[in-house]
Amino acid sequence: MKKNPILAVGSVALDTVKTPFGRVNEALGGSATYFSASARFFSPVSVIAVVGSDFPGKHLEAMRLLGVDTSGIEVQKGKTFRWSGFYDFDLNTAHTLRTELNVFQHFRPKVSPEARSSRYVFLANIDPELQFTVLNQVHDPWLVACDTMNFWIENKRKALQKLLKKVDIFLCNDAEARELSGEYNLIRASKRILSFGPRLLLIKKGEHGVICFSKDFIFLAPAYLLEKVFDPTGAGDSFAGGFIGYLTRSPRLNESVVRQAAIYGSVLASYNVESFSLNRLVDLKRVEIERRYRHFRRLTRF
Amino acid sequence: MKKNPILAVGSVALDTVKTPFGRVNEALGGSATYFSASARFFSPVSVIAVVGSDFPGKHLEAMRLLGVDTSGIEVQKGKTFRWSGFYDFDLNTAHTLRTELNVFQHFRPKVSPEARSSRYVFLANIDPELQFTVLNQVHDPWLVACDTMNFWIENKRKALQKLLKKVDIFLCNDAEARELSGEYNLIRASKRILSFGPRLLLIKKGEHGVICFSKDFIFLAPAYLLEKVFDPTGAGDSFAGGFIGYLTRSPRLNESVVRQAAIYGSVLASYNVESFSLNRLVDLKRVEIERRYRHFRRLTRF
Repeated sequence: MKKNPILAVGSVALDTVKTPFGRVNEALGGSATYFSASARFFSPVSVIAVVGSDFPGKHLEAMRLLGVDTSGIEVQKGKTFRWSGFYDFDLNTAHTLRTELNVFQHFRPKVSPEARSSRYVFLANIDPELQFTVLNQVHDPWLVACDTMNFWIENKRKALQKLLKKVDIFLCNDAEARELSGEYNLIRASKRILSFGPRLLLIKKGEHGVICFSKDFIFLAPAYLLEKVFDPTGAGDSFAGGFIGYLTRSPRLNESVVRQAAIYGSVLASYNVESFSLNRLVDLKRVEIERRYRHFRRLTRF
Repeated sequence: MKKNPILAVGSVALDTVKTPFGRVNEALGGSATYFSASARFFSPVSVIAVVGSDFPGKHLEAMRLLGVDTSGIEVQKGKTFRWSGFYDFDLNTAHTLRTELNVFQHFRPKVSPEARSSRYVFLANIDPELQFTVLNQVHDPWLVACDTMNFWIENKRKALQKLLKKVDIFLCNDAEARELSGEYNLIRASKRILSFGPRLLLIKKGEHGVICFSKDFIFLAPAYLLEKVFDPTGAGDSFAGGFIGYLTRSPRLNESVVRQAAIYGSVLASYNVESFSLNRLVDLKRVEIERRYRHFRRLTRF
């Protein structure tokens, strides 16, 4: 096995989040961060991102302690990307108060010579043109997955559709799937999106679970039910981390592996939302992941 | 087996419904109607309800042709209960335009001597005081299930809680569970509601599926995914019909029977929403129910 089979590009950020259960100020966040903290349970991960000179060294150290290769995280003069937002009791809806792109605004991702041979590539939610740039620097990857958001669907649709031709797995939420496809019904939306290129589409519905679509099958998975959801920030990226992570452990991308991977993704996301920032993912043990996977089976079998 | 093991009290109504896909005017509707048209696939059903002298005879005849015992449907001088509403593309949300109680306003349900020995009782969404009246007329039923709505939670909470002490199975949607329990989180809400009396709680989440709660287990079921949802009216009651119907076929109310019943409920609801009024439930064949049940397994297994 190669040393760093997963390459992830995305944001490494400072998040200020308020939920009905508390708040954090400038905590470690970002899509690449949540993804890598989850995927690292399955395979080594290298992150490509940019932070400002104000980024606390302890955060990079924390990522390294998780086994994440942070050598691709550039430190640029200026301020780190910041997001602040809040959630009401309906934790499925994030309310953004402020997004400061800062050094992210002029980010030009560079893939190191070693990382160019990565087998698995995860393009977290950033400008699809940048996602394309990263992908172009990787030599013949086995599997490419990408995420996006409404902003890019509205403002960079052409670039996104160009990218989707080169992508194996596309992840988005239900509103984004509807917007991208122009179809309200999710089966129709999936057919349209699969026609853009990906062979697998994962529609994330937050607390209502996830639906996997391919040309050959549909898989419906409810979300793991929790008594305490503390902070949903990063749920989608930790889902992607568990999902892609599990795929790296299988020699083939067949239907039953995809189904299991979706449950592993849901397990990682469910742990992530149990606390602010990466707190729960940092403490998490592999045995707990397996335990919750088995519990998922009991919760859903009939 | 007794002749009419299921007794259902609820509304038999004339619905005027508009969806993005069409509209119907004064079509046959009502909670007891949808329930009985689904439950009749499993066991004979007697309906207790009231209609006005304007109620078309063809509708009563249609119910009889389905095998439903309509002898408990009183015809009173006056107008039949009418509901009109519409759905946008988000078919999970019904927008009520008008509710005319008409003869329903002074409804005093009377259970016939034969129906008093019914083994299974379904108290569809009506005034909890009336639900209680019906229940008091039945001799020692094996299983009692009831549904409700936000209006009764807000205006007849005491009567509802008194009723819940006598109920085995309570069905409601997620918003109602939250309102009744005062808890946003559904696990906490379920604990509180189970403490009111029922040994089983089914929280219906529309297109997001259903959750069954008991003291001993939780079962998460996604909704069956459809490419065409035509009219969601009656989905909750046809779910209840499939669910209670299946339970009448099992000698015991154990965990695995409840899980299977929830899937049968979802199957019936999924067929119901494929057309306006009862159209699809009238045509439906038992073999189609079994086919979709098996498909449900393929959609959810991992």
